[in-house]
Amino acid sequence: MERIYVQEVVTRDGLQIEDQFLPTAKKIDLINRLADAGVDKIEATSFVSPKAVPNLKDAEDVMLGIDRKQDVTYTTLIPNVKGAERAASCMADEVNLVVSASETHNRKNVSQTVEESFSGFQDIASFLTGTGIKINGSVATSFGCPFEGTIREDRILTLTEQYLELGAHGVTLADTTGMATPKQVYQLCTKMLDRWPDLQLTMHFHNTRGMGLANVMEAIRAGAIRFDSSLGGLGGCPFAPGATGNICTEDLVHMLAFMDYQMNANLDQLISASKQLEAVLGHEVPGQVIKAGKINDLHAV
Amino acid sequence: MERIYVQEVVTRDGLQIEDQFLPTAKKIDLINRLADAGVDKIEATSFVSPKAVPNLKDAEDVMLGIDRKQDVTYTTLIPNVKGAERAASCMADEVNLVVSASETHNRKNVSQTVEESFSGFQDIASFLTGTGIKINGSVATSFGCPFEGTIREDRILTLTEQYLELGAHGVTLADTTGMATPKQVYQLCTKMLDRWPDLQLTMHFHNTRGMGLANVMEAIRAGAIRFDSSLGGLGGCPFAPGATGNICTEDLVHMLAFMDYQMNANLDQLISASKQLEAVLGHEVPGQVIKAGKINDLHAV
Repeated sequence: MERIYVQEVVTRDGLQIEDQFLPTAKKIDLINRLADAGVDKIEATSFVSPKAVPNLKDAEDVMLGIDRKQDVTYTTLIPNVKGAERAASCMADEVNLVVSASETHNRKNVSQTVEESFSGFQDIASFLTGTGIKINGSVATSFGCPFEGTIREDRILTLTEQYLELGAHGVTLADTTGMATPKQVYQLCTKMLDRWPDLQLTMHFHNTRGMGLANVMEAIRAGAIRFDSSLGGLGGCPFAPGATGNICTEDLVHMLAFMDYQMNANLDQLISASKQLEAVLGHEVPGQVIKAGKINDLHAV
Repeated sequence: MERIYVQEVVTRDGLQIEDQFLPTAKKIDLINRLADAGVDKIEATSFVSPKAVPNLKDAEDVMLGIDRKQDVTYTTLIPNVKGAERAASCMADEVNLVVSASETHNRKNVSQTVEESFSGFQDIASFLTGTGIKINGSVATSFGCPFEGTIREDRILTLTEQYLELGAHGVTLADTTGMATPKQVYQLCTKMLDRWPDLQLTMHFHNTRGMGLANVMEAIRAGAIRFDSSLGGLGGCPFAPGATGNICTEDLVHMLAFMDYQMNANLDQLISASKQLEAVLGHEVPGQVIKAGKINDLHAV
């Protein structure tokens, strides 16, 4: 069975839309726990304006406070050169750029056209030249836009090409609002990996409509091996109160572990970290395995 | 794309573990709505002892109160000849028998050994001869037992054979506590359909650990076309408070509809029925699509 790479986004994608600010020390503890649990990459924080995302206003303190493990890639989301400067000052291993496949969503998200976004990315790439900091390019709404609807596959290939021309070492296809169907995932993943067999392709699924793990299975069948997920399934959907967001890390690892996929991630440590996160936040998270237990947690007769 | 058969179990599997008794008129209305929404089969109720399952004590009133549609199969769960007599008195189209693949689970569930269960099924089959009422045989814990753990595939094939010898026209493999992985589903489904290509095989998945719809996709890939599901995902897991139970009907139909599978079920009517069910029960249900909307429910810019 293939080696699958588990990439954690809870401290960025999850915490940014929490009602409450999670204290810096608790963020640091959470990231250290995730690294100890063997996830391959952690999107630790986001170097955006503290006004735009107050929950992540402590980005520098978090990045400088964590213990850095050699075999974990610490990535941070950045919107512009200012963000790149901040990420560089904290010695991030990688920066994550985001553009939406949908013009409407990009304007809503970053108040720019897609062309303007890429023009800014060019400045970021120039700034980062020689720093050793890698670039990952994310394509939001890759499988559909909540405003525009269907997104053409060609569009995703074009944006990927633009990221690669920029010098990105990896590309993430994000199903930002959980619109992807398994069939669509298989088709687009296949097309991507046929065209760029050596691309570090990450699939970023949301479970908004219950298809998250089904999409993972189809992506694997098409050759994808890198997946973003959020501890406890923390996060949500800005368009749908009560709907879930990112696929849940421990549910993902649980499913794959019991099918004998190879991962560095340790299921028991993730489950324990997720239960602790739930306690710290003081509210239930969408993860299923922390409620139901693992398949092999047998009951006394 | 294949024709997929959607088989509804909410009024049996879902309601039996609700805290409150749903009034008979509301059960009847729910079943009629499901029939109108085009599901292919409805497990309307269970002819068990009212003491064992007080929520379904109105089984006769429900069965005699509903409008029967020609293209819907109305099935009822029965444990013994007494149940078969009651089902026959209400002109059920089919009875559903249940035995567990796990001896321990069967003893817990029906206080019998598996052999004793089949001996009772023989009496039921004799009683039903000539009535025109069909028999479906369900194998609980087909993919794992919460007490015994792993269940051997051979065991499932043997029990299927015993059901077919009894005259069953269909067999259901039930993942009673959500222990099946997609890989396991693909393997067992393939084995079943290789051996009995014409078997009316139903897959009955639970979403206890988040793998429900992933398991559906793998079952379809292996050739399965009939699925049990529960409106709103109503139901739960007796071993895990807060964990989900059966896969959610409208989430299942939503996923399959957007991949162009052919179904008789109407997604919009199911969503509307699920929202009404939530209102009638007065508590949230696990279904995702009623919270997030359909993929093509676009938002205004």
